[in-house]
Amino acid sequence: MPSSMFSMRASHGTTLAPEQSTIFRDSMYNKPNFFYKHLLCFKRSCVSSNLAHSSVSQKDIIQCRAVEVASNRTFLKGEKFQLHDVIEAQQFDRDILSAIFEVAREMEIIEKKSRGSQLLNGYLMATLFYEPSTRTRLSFESAMKRLGGEVLTTENAREFSSAAKGETLEDTIRTVEGYTDIIVMRHFESGAARRAAMTANIPIINAGDGPGEHPTQALLDVYTIEREIGKLDGIKVGLVGDLANGRTVRSLAYLLAKYNDVKVYFVSPEEDIKEYLTSKGVEWEESADLKEVASKCDVVYQTRIQKERFGERTDLYEEACGKYIVDREILDVMQKHAVITVDVDGDPRAAYFRQAKNGLYIRMALLKLLLLGW
Amino acid sequence: MPSSMFSMRASHGTTLAPEQSTIFRDSMYNKPNFFYKHLLCFKRSCVSSNLAHSSVSQKDIIQCRAVEVASNRTFLKGEKFQLHDVIEAQQFDRDILSAIFEVAREMEIIEKKSRGSQLLNGYLMATLFYEPSTRTRLSFESAMKRLGGEVLTTENAREFSSAAKGETLEDTIRTVEGYTDIIVMRHFESGAARRAAMTANIPIINAGDGPGEHPTQALLDVYTIEREIGKLDGIKVGLVGDLANGRTVRSLAYLLAKYNDVKVYFVSPEEDIKEYLTSKGVEWEESADLKEVASKCDVVYQTRIQKERFGERTDLYEEACGKYIVDREILDVMQKHAVITVDVDGDPRAAYFRQAKNGLYIRMALLKLLLLGW
Amino acid sequence: MPSSMFSMRASHGTTLAPEQSTIFRDSMYNKPNFFYKHLLCFKRSCVSSNLAHSSVSQKDIIQCRAVEVASNRTFLKGEKFQLHDVIEAQQFDRDILSAIFEVAREMEIIEKKSRGSQLLNGYLMATLFYEPSTRTRLSFESAMKRLGGEVLTTENAREFSSAAKGETLEDTIRTVEGYTDIIVMRHFESGAARRAAMTANIPIINAGDGPGEHPTQALLDVYTIEREIGKLDGIKVGLVGDLANGRTVRSLAYLLAKYNDVKVYFVSPEEDIKEYLTSKGVEWEESADLKEVASKCDVVYQTRIQKERFGERTDLYEEACGKYIVDREILDVMQKHAVITVDVDGDPRAAYFRQAKNGLYIRMALLKLLLLGW
Repeated sequence: MPSSMFSMRASHGTTLAPEQSTIFRDSMYNKPNFFYKHLLCFKRSCVSSNLAHSSVSQKDIIQCRAVEVASNRTFLKGEKFQLHDVIEAQQFDRDILSAIFEVAREMEIIEKKSRGSQLLNGYLMATLFYEPSTRTRLSFESAMKRLGGEVLTTENAREFSSAAKGETLEDTIRTVEGYTDIIVMRHFESGAARRAAMTANIPIINAGDGPGEHPTQALLDVYTIEREIGKLDGIKVGLVGDLANGRTVRSLAYLLAKYNDVKVYFVSPEEDIKEYLTSKGVEWEESADLKEVASKCDVVYQTRIQKERFGERTDLYEEACGKYIVDREILDVMQKHAVITVDVDGDPRAAYFRQAKNGLYIRMALLKLLLLGW
Repeated sequence: MPSSMFSMRASHGTTLAPEQSTIFRDSMYNKPNFFYKHLLCFKRSCVSSNLAHSSVSQKDIIQCRAVEVASNRTFLKGEKFQLHDVIEAQQFDRDILSAIFEVAREMEIIEKKSRGSQLLNGYLMATLFYEPSTRTRLSFESAMKRLGGEVLTTENAREFSSAAKGETLEDTIRTVEGYTDIIVMRHFESGAARRAAMTANIPIINAGDGPGEHPTQALLDVYTIEREIGKLDGIKVGLVGDLANGRTVRSLAYLLAKYNDVKVYFVSPEEDIKEYLTSKGVEWEESADLKEVASKCDVVYQTRIQKERFGERTDLYEEACGKYIVDREILDVMQKHAVITVDVDGDPRAAYFRQAKNGLYIRMALLKLLLLGW
Repeated sequence: MPSSMFSMRASHGTTLAPEQSTIFRDSMYNKPNFFYKHLLCFKRSCVSSNLAHSSVSQKDIIQCRAVEVASNRTFLKGEKFQLHDVIEAQQFDRDILSAIFEVAREMEIIEKKSRGSQLLNGYLMATLFYEPSTRTRLSFESAMKRLGGEVLTTENAREFSSAAKGETLEDTIRTVEGYTDIIVMRHFESGAARRAAMTANIPIINAGDGPGEHPTQALLDVYTIEREIGKLDGIKVGLVGDLANGRTVRSLAYLLAKYNDVKVYFVSPEEDIKEYLTSKGVEWEESADLKEVASKCDVVYQTRIQKERFGERTDLYEEACGKYIVDREILDVMQKHAVITVDVDGDPRAAYFRQAKNGLYIRMALLKLLLLGW
């Protein structure tokens, strides 16, 4: 279970009972036990001392063992956690989220005030992108460089897995981890980030794996909501549009489910997320009336309507736009609330570009936490 | 008008009358008023304080307002200017050119003498290239890194504007400006750099926009001529070859028109530039005899003959080469003069590679001026 | 001859006779005299003082002249050498190899212990790749950044040589050398690296030129063998697989031929390398029995079997795999020996990923030696 991604950093304190462990039992994904990774890392270190990477210290091995013998939920109340990888939204709970957001706020100050932070001076991050995503890549590379770190860029990592070379993802990871301190990976297959994390002895950040997850996006969405609305408990969120291909929205729903009294309104035919919310006891409602929903919500989360998915049927496309797009008329019924959309960015409530900037802070925070700890 | 690209940095001095404002009235381009940008930036800051970017200080807003209320030409005699963007050759006048060239000479010393300048330490430049141009990109990235700055590279920015994502240039700029301190943009559409500059709150450098302009190339051409010939007033320049697609030559002509007693010889069918020179009162002459022109000129500016534009007609291609290419025979009639060409680089008068190096110095100078001021 | 790649750094000592010069007389390659390069560099410096690049000091010119007047083999016993370029495996002899390996070991300590070495602070390396090779590029870029240097990346350098632009490799090199301190080049044509080195006034490293050479790969192979086995003289090496397209194996054979009492076993139809070894007096043997060879060897060097080369004949492909692949059964007959392969990396004797890491150290060493000297 995801709690194994965090291990203790301090040697005292009281162990928490696995009170919220059900949060991590995700009915939509069947995940191998994440303990495996650390067992593996421990075992590997025994088998071949030659393989020991500089970044895997004796301390890490002890941490792994600690995780191994502990129960599902293993962290110390009042103590800091060590983040090992960022693979999926489900791995985070409220405490971790709150701690990450606190660091993100510090990053905002660093980025704005002190030109040329040297916090990650001497560290190298590799962006291993099996499919292009310039926006996400730039955000991560900017985050690393704003902290004084350096970057190795790979935009055509598919080359590694070409038929001619026949290299497995695991082989690639084992090679690339020799060149860098952390890997940010974008892949076209669901589950690829998890496989990479199981192989690597250095931290892996999932920057999107196929239709799977995009956890840093979900983190920045929740961070943006908290920044704009001022709270997360008790918020009303409208999820609008064609969410079927929306790994981002799914990851967001996973995170929202960790807060109290959240109410979700769907203006969307998506079923997948509804089942998940039901399983988590989150209240939700369906509606075809965007205007009515918008008037009730604190947050309207709108996905892009992808024209090419409608093919020749431009009539259906225009109908979808009419139904799902937040325009001036919708804005008029809202009050002081953040709308996340691409079409109304003249309105101060449209958090779109502030959101992009928040993504930078979140990624700076994650890089700091993964490489330096709290 | 382009003068709005410069705003005052000092608070005293005497305001110049718009004596040379006609220089900026370019008959070939219909430009929206550049004041608009700063008005916009001012307004945006009012509407949403959240949108305020760290690089837009209160001072900038005051500058914007100052520009707004002033007349066309707004700088202070004997004072330094603040360069906001580099969009087109026409935005520069003699004083600015001379000041930029002075900084370029300082950059030459920095690049040669002191390994590892830290002048731009902590600054980030993004190269946002919607079409590949490895040579131009490398020149800018080298310039930034020679000054201790860092770079985010984008070679496939077209991805941003893909049909699926449907993102406008303005959206992209607003996102990317959150990640960087300055954007160097190459685009396939004329006018794209201007649109970017109107949107952005950080400096934009135009690294070529379709058939439009390539102002940094024009700057380095003029800088090279001055370095090689020792003067710009009174020079005789031969423009040779197929100039029809030559945005570079057009930008060069704009800059040459700012100097006195320049005489231009055309060994080319191009009409566009001739009209411009006439409107500026620059003397020009047509000739089919390259040899005779070469014997008279201080500078021979030769464009490449693009073979693929002749298709099957290799006979016409070879005829054009015979007519327009500076070879040993042409060189023999010239004296101690710089020739800008790719085919005679064994001759010390061929400034081609010195020109590439001058491009580095010019770009270092522009980055310094845009990010730090004079 | 390759000896011209090294020039004296000290002004005293005794000149060595060209005792091993036959080593450099390579029957497989007809090389132009490498002196030419330095003559050229000397001449150019005379012709045009403007061309003088900061990295070509007066000292270099004197060195060139020294090389020019000296005989084939020009270095001083007990003195250090200056490495100018890395073009082919044959340019290295035992002394140089041993010295490089010593520096590589220092690099290993730097990489592991001191985060953020500043040894190459202020230096710029350009990776000029005419065909993609993400693995090799990342290794070089990591090496440069681990030493505090900076990188300019080019993954689509083919653009330079596009028909439309018609730029020669020599033109490209002369432009790019203005932007950087060292060029790492991958090209699709055999001999391209040599042509680049003849043109450039800055160091060139060949990162693979078509079917030609891949000298840094050969260096890391030999370095890995020495690290794993503890010696190079007297080792028994099995070369296994389809070596026909193996520029890497060929480069390795060139280097092995420099050591005493090396015995090579071929489990491969390759003829090319056998002839070379015969000409160098290296003992070799053919065998179809991988198991028997494996039991005798210190090193088994296995190439990948490239499936696509067998087309429809999957039967032949599977036969080749059965014959040439080191599996568990083969491993069982070996003892404490390093095997270089992709399929058995769970076994500590599989040096594959340690080899990748050694590649980093070798490349760090070469960059240090080319830019700073010994």
